[in-house]
Amino acid sequence: MPKIVDHEERRKQIAEATWRVIFNQGMKGATVRNIAQEAGLSLGALRHYFSTQDELLSFAMRLVKERATQRIQDIAMREMSPKEKMVQILLELVPVDEQRMAEMEVWFAFTFHQKYETISQNEMHQGFFPELERSLEYLAHHGLLREGLDLELEAEKLYAIIDGIALHALLESQRLRPERIIRVLTSHIQSICKEDETN
Amino acid sequence: MPKIVDHEERRKQIAEATWRVIFNQGMKGATVRNIAQEAGLSLGALRHYFSTQDELLSFAMRLVKERATQRIQDIAMREMSPKEKMVQILLELVPVDEQRMAEMEVWFAFTFHQKYETISQNEMHQGFFPELERSLEYLAHHGLLREGLDLELEAEKLYAIIDGIALHALLESQRLRPERIIRVLTSHIQSICKEDETN
Repeated sequence: MPKIVDHEERRKQIAEATWRVIFNQGMKGATVRNIAQEAGLSLGALRHYFSTQDELLSFAMRLVKERATQRIQDIAMREMSPKEKMVQILLELVPVDEQRMAEMEVWFAFTFHQKYETISQNEMHQGFFPELERSLEYLAHHGLLREGLDLELEAEKLYAIIDGIALHALLESQRLRPERIIRVLTSHIQSICKEDETN
Repeated sequence: MPKIVDHEERRKQIAEATWRVIFNQGMKGATVRNIAQEAGLSLGALRHYFSTQDELLSFAMRLVKERATQRIQDIAMREMSPKEKMVQILLELVPVDEQRMAEMEVWFAFTFHQKYETISQNEMHQGFFPELERSLEYLAHHGLLREGLDLELEAEKLYAIIDGIALHALLESQRLRPERIIRVLTSHIQSICKEDETN
């Protein structure tokens, strides 16, 4: 069914054009007209793939989350120590390179936009809280976490650290460079884990 | 000089009207016309106090920061243990009540707005990183911090926790209720301090 594949592929290309428009002009610039132009399509052609702006924006956002989830799953399959894996996963959720910076920018712009718009509530902000909770359980399962931690509070704290860092990396990129982000996340994971035994 | 006092007072009232408009309608609604209406002023009268929308928004934002800073200073003067003081100060920076929720909402809306607007760069996002750094130095000065902590990294982490929690309190208020926020911040301060000796 090559036609269906093409259709999905084209929708993804349009979503990527949407990210570029939001990245460069903010949500205000994310009109169907601007997005069509960025994607090299006529307005009519764009409407063939997305009948409303709302549908297009929701799809573009879901794709951000889907891709991050995919990257996390890829890391989860790799051979490395649980602690290193944890840090690598966290680094997928903060903007340490240009692509992730753009995704994060779109994520925040969209999130604040939709608070005041009529976008359906089930497309509302969906963060990575459950994923982070599971990652901590994974460390606990491997016997790596310090004794006496409250997993739920630790997940809440880690989730705050991740999104706080993402926010600051966007707004205060002069101070918060990628190598500093890596140090903060690594030191946090160290602080909730037992003393090292080369793990 | 009662006239000058009145002038400043009126500017503050207009700033508060601005917060209400942004809180209810987002930045998109923060037109000079809407703000004048919310403040019960004519457009002409409003222009007497702020000649441009940019000037008004910048003033409104500075006032958010000024008031938070004032509240922090008030706490710093009070009699309580250093650790308790630290938690109380942190609680001034996250939305645990309606007023702070509104301030935070305005803060984020404005912050993302100005990334794409022509607002002068010196009004750009100014977070509380230096204040948090100083608070940690204060705990260190009282000999309360654990040995071997890297203060700069800890400040970065604490700053991320604060803004991450603020963000999640706005977006995921169902899960992240005030009592949970208090537990996360208290447990974080405990985790970077030496074991308790009733302090």
